[in-house]
Amino acid sequence: MGDQELDVVFTASHPDDLEIGTGGTIAKLVKLGYRVGMLHMTDGEPTPRGTPEVRTAEARRAAEILGAQVCEMLRLVNRELMDCPESRYAVATFLRRYRPRILVGLAGRTPAASPDHYQAQLITEAARFYSQLTQWDDRFDDTQPFRIEHLVYRPVPFSAEITHFPSRFVVDISDTIEQKIAAVRCYESQFGGDRAERLQHYILSAAGMEGASAGFRYGETYALPRPVGVTDMIALLGDWKIPPPFPPGGRDSGSLGNPKRT
Amino acid sequence: MGDQELDVVFTASHPDDLEIGTGGTIAKLVKLGYRVGMLHMTDGEPTPRGTPEVRTAEARRAAEILGAQVCEMLRLVNRELMDCPESRYAVATFLRRYRPRILVGLAGRTPAASPDHYQAQLITEAARFYSQLTQWDDRFDDTQPFRIEHLVYRPVPFSAEITHFPSRFVVDISDTIEQKIAAVRCYESQFGGDRAERLQHYILSAAGMEGASAGFRYGETYALPRPVGVTDMIALLGDWKIPPPFPPGGRDSGSLGNPKRT
Amino acid sequence: MGDQELDVVFTASHPDDLEIGTGGTIAKLVKLGYRVGMLHMTDGEPTPRGTPEVRTAEARRAAEILGAQVCEMLRLVNRELMDCPESRYAVATFLRRYRPRILVGLAGRTPAASPDHYQAQLITEAARFYSQLTQWDDRFDDTQPFRIEHLVYRPVPFSAEITHFPSRFVVDISDTIEQKIAAVRCYESQFGGDRAERLQHYILSAAGMEGASAGFRYGETYALPRPVGVTDMIALLGDWKIPPPFPPGGRDSGSLGNPKRT
Amino acid sequence: MGDQELDVVFTASHPDDLEIGTGGTIAKLVKLGYRVGMLHMTDGEPTPRGTPEVRTAEARRAAEILGAQVCEMLRLVNRELMDCPESRYAVATFLRRYRPRILVGLAGRTPAASPDHYQAQLITEAARFYSQLTQWDDRFDDTQPFRIEHLVYRPVPFSAEITHFPSRFVVDISDTIEQKIAAVRCYESQFGGDRAERLQHYILSAAGMEGASAGFRYGETYALPRPVGVTDMIALLGDWKIPPPFPPGGRDSGSLGNPKRT
Amino acid sequence: MGDQELDVVFTASHPDDLEIGTGGTIAKLVKLGYRVGMLHMTDGEPTPRGTPEVRTAEARRAAEILGAQVCEMLRLVNRELMDCPESRYAVATFLRRYRPRILVGLAGRTPAASPDHYQAQLITEAARFYSQLTQWDDRFDDTQPFRIEHLVYRPVPFSAEITHFPSRFVVDISDTIEQKIAAVRCYESQFGGDRAERLQHYILSAAGMEGASAGFRYGETYALPRPVGVTDMIALLGDWKIPPPFPPGGRDSGSLGNPKRT
Amino acid sequence: MGDQELDVVFTASHPDDLEIGTGGTIAKLVKLGYRVGMLHMTDGEPTPRGTPEVRTAEARRAAEILGAQVCEMLRLVNRELMDCPESRYAVATFLRRYRPRILVGLAGRTPAASPDHYQAQLITEAARFYSQLTQWDDRFDDTQPFRIEHLVYRPVPFSAEITHFPSRFVVDISDTIEQKIAAVRCYESQFGGDRAERLQHYILSAAGMEGASAGFRYGETYALPRPVGVTDMIALLGDWKIPPPFPPGGRDSGSLGNPKRT
Repeated sequence: MGDQELDVVFTASHPDDLEIGTGGTIAKLVKLGYRVGMLHMTDGEPTPRGTPEVRTAEARRAAEILGAQVCEMLRLVNRELMDCPESRYAVATFLRRYRPRILVGLAGRTPAASPDHYQAQLITEAARFYSQLTQWDDRFDDTQPFRIEHLVYRPVPFSAEITHFPSRFVVDISDTIEQKIAAVRCYESQFGGDRAERLQHYILSAAGMEGASAGFRYGETYALPRPVGVTDMIALLGDWKIPPPFPPGGRDSGSLGNPKRT
Repeated sequence: MGDQELDVVFTASHPDDLEIGTGGTIAKLVKLGYRVGMLHMTDGEPTPRGTPEVRTAEARRAAEILGAQVCEMLRLVNRELMDCPESRYAVATFLRRYRPRILVGLAGRTPAASPDHYQAQLITEAARFYSQLTQWDDRFDDTQPFRIEHLVYRPVPFSAEITHFPSRFVVDISDTIEQKIAAVRCYESQFGGDRAERLQHYILSAAGMEGASAGFRYGETYALPRPVGVTDMIALLGDWKIPPPFPPGGRDSGSLGNPKRT
Repeated sequence: MGDQELDVVFTASHPDDLEIGTGGTIAKLVKLGYRVGMLHMTDGEPTPRGTPEVRTAEARRAAEILGAQVCEMLRLVNRELMDCPESRYAVATFLRRYRPRILVGLAGRTPAASPDHYQAQLITEAARFYSQLTQWDDRFDDTQPFRIEHLVYRPVPFSAEITHFPSRFVVDISDTIEQKIAAVRCYESQFGGDRAERLQHYILSAAGMEGASAGFRYGETYALPRPVGVTDMIALLGDWKIPPPFPPGGRDSGSLGNPKRT
Repeated sequence: MGDQELDVVFTASHPDDLEIGTGGTIAKLVKLGYRVGMLHMTDGEPTPRGTPEVRTAEARRAAEILGAQVCEMLRLVNRELMDCPESRYAVATFLRRYRPRILVGLAGRTPAASPDHYQAQLITEAARFYSQLTQWDDRFDDTQPFRIEHLVYRPVPFSAEITHFPSRFVVDISDTIEQKIAAVRCYESQFGGDRAERLQHYILSAAGMEGASAGFRYGETYALPRPVGVTDMIALLGDWKIPPPFPPGGRDSGSLGNPKRT
Repeated sequence: MGDQELDVVFTASHPDDLEIGTGGTIAKLVKLGYRVGMLHMTDGEPTPRGTPEVRTAEARRAAEILGAQVCEMLRLVNRELMDCPESRYAVATFLRRYRPRILVGLAGRTPAASPDHYQAQLITEAARFYSQLTQWDDRFDDTQPFRIEHLVYRPVPFSAEITHFPSRFVVDISDTIEQKIAAVRCYESQFGGDRAERLQHYILSAAGMEGASAGFRYGETYALPRPVGVTDMIALLGDWKIPPPFPPGGRDSGSLGNPKRT
Repeated sequence: MGDQELDVVFTASHPDDLEIGTGGTIAKLVKLGYRVGMLHMTDGEPTPRGTPEVRTAEARRAAEILGAQVCEMLRLVNRELMDCPESRYAVATFLRRYRPRILVGLAGRTPAASPDHYQAQLITEAARFYSQLTQWDDRFDDTQPFRIEHLVYRPVPFSAEITHFPSRFVVDISDTIEQKIAAVRCYESQFGGDRAERLQHYILSAAGMEGASAGFRYGETYALPRPVGVTDMIALLGDWKIPPPFPPGGRDSGSLGNPKRT
């Protein structure tokens, strides 16, 4: 994997965060012909059954299953990830090297879990800004400034912050849900025993419910820090149709047959 | 089914609304030994393949599967349900006859579907208030005033209003999910062909995701118009444990094994 | 103007509501080749200097300036507009006749102005649902049922409800702002004297500010009752770029030159 | 006070924060037979009339009045409390030593007062997560990892963040309000002169209003980062009844007599 | 009491709603020299121990205690109050007769109590709009159109809608709290026995807590549908000071003495 | 410019932030006779066409145009501004020297731009608190403790946090909009070429729209962390009138002529 430019980069704090949260979309984008990168800010270690080497290998296999062209792992400190200039430099240097048009990060506080997740969001936002800064190239390994056109959020599950985002959309991952599950399964050091089954149950439920919100069988929800700008409203809506909320899937009782979805 | 008192009454606008939204909880409450009633405000007709008689029979079978002791159907007008004194009297008369301790109604606007759903919420709220009114017994078929101790909401899917509720809780329906699906399947006039499959996919996804928010395999979410009042905070939390939000199901990377849930 | 099908229909309570709120988008859609209809639910009368005839003529001229293929006016009662079955039938009959793919209505309460605005939102939501109902064709002037694929909201200015919508987008009206202003000017019976100037000042400010939120010179904001469903996230974002929030328009102090927008 | 396990631990930044915010609940839990710990992260000094020694003595007397089995004071820096690994280690070490089932912390930003309050919330959330981490025992004074089952928030007064919490509940402190006030009075170095009276007025008003929201004479409000998970909805509601909101306390005009509360 | 103009009018659905919600402010405004009117939309009957005559007399005594120059009672139907043209005409006719500069109504849904409260809010909003309508004088008893400059809300207790309002303020009622309580006590037919005591406890708690949010001993909270417009920001803030949120009343630990409030 | 006391101090991270956000209000306050200070926390450098010297000179000229009596620039690090004790000391020392009654800072996260903006908000809030601390004078250059009576926020454009603030108000800057634009134009090193025009377009649009929300031709929006406390509600509202929301500027169709505004 070389220093070629990417269309989209996904960032998160720990290996397996991206696969669980955004795996279906990564695979979908690759399938559509885009070049996608994944950046794990830490190696996620120590854990009871993992080592940095094992974790790295798992991450690589997962990225291969999803088809991501680039997958790298920074060595920021797991469990102690903090938004500070050094973390921002590290992520921004990656971004300036691969020059993606779109940057996707997980968003939302996880007060009942690791504080790393929210710090990773702050680092991601700042790193996007740092990517375009001039005059400081020496702080970024002499890479050139680059303006990333979009910041996209993947809200963490049950995020209270979701109402803060002015625009949400759902990516149809009906045909990549299998890849997503296979990618998560690579993390054998993390999800052994009945955990694998429980996690798969969660992933299918979440993707089914998020998909239902937009009328897809399986979906992943994203959000933007701004309302989408469009020239043609009708093109924006494409061939998507608003699904009925209750009962989802439509009812026969007084409405036309449910329109087919391709 | 006679005029015996009930512990809980569930109300909604159309037959099948309650089964889809609250079927798992109805079956669970019955299993725990409570007496449960269901009230459909309309017969849900006309529909392309239904008749009032068919719909009534379907509703009765569904209630039997769930084990509800009482299931009645008012003849308010489907598609034109409006919150007005007459609708309130009709529902309140039912409530004064069965004197439940708890009243559960669907809540939230469904702007992309039938306006009946929101009107049913307004009627339910008002009917609970009307149940306790004195001096007007003649308007309620000479039933006696009765104060219903609780109003509980079942938020409709994707409800924007959900952040308005000060308190939400999730009922574990892991062992009644099958009954819920079987009850919904009774509505053959409404969910024929691939609709049945699509609806089941939705129900499993929604119950899986709502369950995950509280750490259950399958769950149904409810809300209260007030914060819960408790004497013993520890008893409130019971043997429930806050589940990790990300990745749901727990991870092996640096935490103790996931506690067993019974 | 005949009974041909339309791509989009815009509805509001009073003549001039649509021109002020959505005029730029109507003109834009027409320019892009779509067929657009406008429905005023009332004639907006009585007013001090208007008559039903004058108002009708003004509405017709405004629609011509915007290029709308269809513009009709129902005779529901101004100032007393209420969401009820009759209002819903009237609007739905129009919709079933023109069979638009997309329905756009104003949304949000206006407690400091006419209650008609919010009632029009409720009527519009219900009329979309009524459009698809079977078995009741006689209530809709024997038109055929039709499922409108999208409900789109145009939030009223300063709407508190705007955070309820899961997805917002902004239409670039930089090249139709003049048409919008010209259309509003047709309502001479309503905006005489210094009102015309004050209203134009407001329209330019609002369109400038809403445009700025998405990086356009002038824009109009819309919202959806659901997150947008997409297959290709990158196609959704198109050639749009997230604009810097502060200071809008970009700063020279440490960032690359502001990307050109076409 | 030894290294015995506790049922609940309450944490806050300064001595007197817990007494003012959660004193009634601490006393109530002790009365119910639970073992309760209090952790002050700083000694709250310097202040005009206090010293670390005085403050420590005051805190000890307050804890005795409330009946808390454990009360400790860390020496993190007052006024400069920051969420960082060191602060997290210090709090987590306390938690791993006492192994409480439930952790309660104050939540919400206090932009018009000390920034320490919000930092203490962040530290508390992270320390709960750190408590369960394996492989790093040396950073926690060789204590063993321990999973705390619950994170409970006590929202600070007038907190804008309160709508973020999916579930709130109110503890009935009608019979411990006197202990709460007595515990706050221990802080003579802080609340001398007419301050003592003003603070007592505030405490009675807040407890009266929070109690009213759930139908108690005096109450303290708490929140959870997740919806409560329950098996039996009716058991959750216990013998609590939803109180009428307006006018609180019930009215005689058309309703049954207000139900007795025990 | 004649047809003289008023400065402010307060409206609500039932006699005693205004006294409980806004009594302190009414008395305060009268004390400051303003002319204040009260409008009860219904007589609040039937109730177990009241009659229309008793209720009217109680309302009159309460208004005298508060010092309101005008107090009238419409005969809209208690328990069945609905927002409809007739209700709007009735309230607007009162407003056009007394031509107040400011209109104050209760706001927010009370789903656990009477639906009349929310309907009264809708009627009040619409009636303010109707007051200024031209051409329809015959519908308003031949009164003249009049534009009321302000719509002010008094949020009902525990109102979920409170975050919708762009601007809130608290009126200092420290010196009229006694009048408020005395006015509520006039409703002997409604608040007999231990209800009187419970209601007084609630009123003192609510006024103490709302006052504390702005630094007063007792206060009543109001809200506006728009941000306040000001010429002089410093004059707006007057001699008011932001109170410390935690612990309210100020602490001695590191801050200057609490500023005196006059 | 000496060490005289100020009425108001405005703080922000970079030179030009305050002019763009609050320039109209600064000029207005000066015009009304108040003494106003501006504090830039960094020099905003490096930038492609700026130097610290150039930036300082630009800031000075801008302050002169606005009439601010004091304008200073701290040397905290641009692009790396972090809320930490040192930053707080630096800002608080300025505040203790000038002892303003009111402190105004920008508020809200800007995830699509510099992270400095949000850090500046945190620093400002903490510095206000630090200003009043006793016993630590040596950390503040031996200045005396001072309690700043008010913390006022200027929300950043499109801020998601705006619904968190309990009270918003709009300052009428109709007669200082020219000064605001002239002050921004001083930053030639930042806004050259067509940027100057684009920025002016934004400023006029934003001020026009924010003004419209309160009925002014041009306005700037502010927010408070608490509801405003008032003695006289009518004095608070002053001669301001609530403007109609739709269509802004009023309509002739059924309402009295729009009231004059001076």
